[in-house]
Amino acid sequence: MEYFPPALETLVEQFARLPGVGLKSAQRLAFYVLSLSQEEADTFARAIVEAKRVIHCCPVCQNLTEGDGPCAVCRSPKRDPSTICVVADPKDVVALERSREYQGLYHVLHGVISPLCHGGPGDLHIKSLVERVAAGGVAEVIMATNPDTEGEATAMYLARLLKPFQVRVTRLAYGIPVGSHLEYADDATLMRALEGRQAM
Amino acid sequence: MEYFPPALETLVEQFARLPGVGLKSAQRLAFYVLSLSQEEADTFARAIVEAKRVIHCCPVCQNLTEGDGPCAVCRSPKRDPSTICVVADPKDVVALERSREYQGLYHVLHGVISPLCHGGPGDLHIKSLVERVAAGGVAEVIMATNPDTEGEATAMYLARLLKPFQVRVTRLAYGIPVGSHLEYADDATLMRALEGRQAM
Repeated sequence: MEYFPPALETLVEQFARLPGVGLKSAQRLAFYVLSLSQEEADTFARAIVEAKRVIHCCPVCQNLTEGDGPCAVCRSPKRDPSTICVVADPKDVVALERSREYQGLYHVLHGVISPLCHGGPGDLHIKSLVERVAAGGVAEVIMATNPDTEGEATAMYLARLLKPFQVRVTRLAYGIPVGSHLEYADDATLMRALEGRQAM
Repeated sequence: MEYFPPALETLVEQFARLPGVGLKSAQRLAFYVLSLSQEEADTFARAIVEAKRVIHCCPVCQNLTEGDGPCAVCRSPKRDPSTICVVADPKDVVALERSREYQGLYHVLHGVISPLCHGGPGDLHIKSLVERVAAGGVAEVIMATNPDTEGEATAMYLARLLKPFQVRVTRLAYGIPVGSHLEYADDATLMRALEGRQAM
């Protein structure tokens, strides 16, 4: 019996380890690699090794950055160091930066407190957040974890933890998303939108 | 504005080039690579480069194989060289080998004739098939392209091409798949199953 050549089987196995990639998809991806030129395949492989090699967490805000020093946001003299926005994930930083509205610094937790998935506070970058606040110079900490149960629980846990330092702890506003329709808004969102109504 | 670090952006772009992988999936895959150990990332990268480097088409049957010589099937003294099974894709060889029924050799076309996708006979490994048959010693060529329009057209094209050589050209049987139910069989399959009925 002859199956795929061993080097192809190995590549299929590697692709099948990726999240959300089954055996059939892994085969399709492996065949795609074979259809590349040697140079394109090398570029792909180099991107994997390079990303793993050069990307680290910023020692200040724990966001992903290249090299050893603080990230571009933490280094920037244009950013307001008295405000820290706490997010669960580096992707959330990208989303907030896209809005071009926020001018303060960040703190990336790399997860949320999730008792069901055995994710306790010890797995997150919480200690370094407390140390930043304790070091002084911080006026406000904005909780920007996701508006789900785990994000809420994490935000509330952190708010309690930061209470001794007498900083203002705020939460992103809940409400109707811009451009959506009232009729499609769920009850919880509508309730929060009503609670948070503002003078016009 | 700060997005992902450049090395991460590069990796996301590389993943996004894979077939069936959108930007969001590419980000998820890139973050998965960051979560690997350096050794695991190196193994993944090496699998890509190695597969591309060592895998070639067998000079006889055009199936994928490692190294320069003929593949294990073509080299095997146990296989019957008088029968050639023509398939569109290396995956089809794997499927046929899995059945442990076929003892002849293969010929992999690497595609089918597809006028809509600008795929003419010139893009396929047809010339080498004709040469194998012309060289003599072949008694039967089994067309095992897929039972769809393009697979059918390709099989008929090849059958006409091989006519001068007076080999027996056959086609895989159509019929009800084993283990399925009559009520779910489509009209065309049922018609072919009736046409191809056999004495019990």
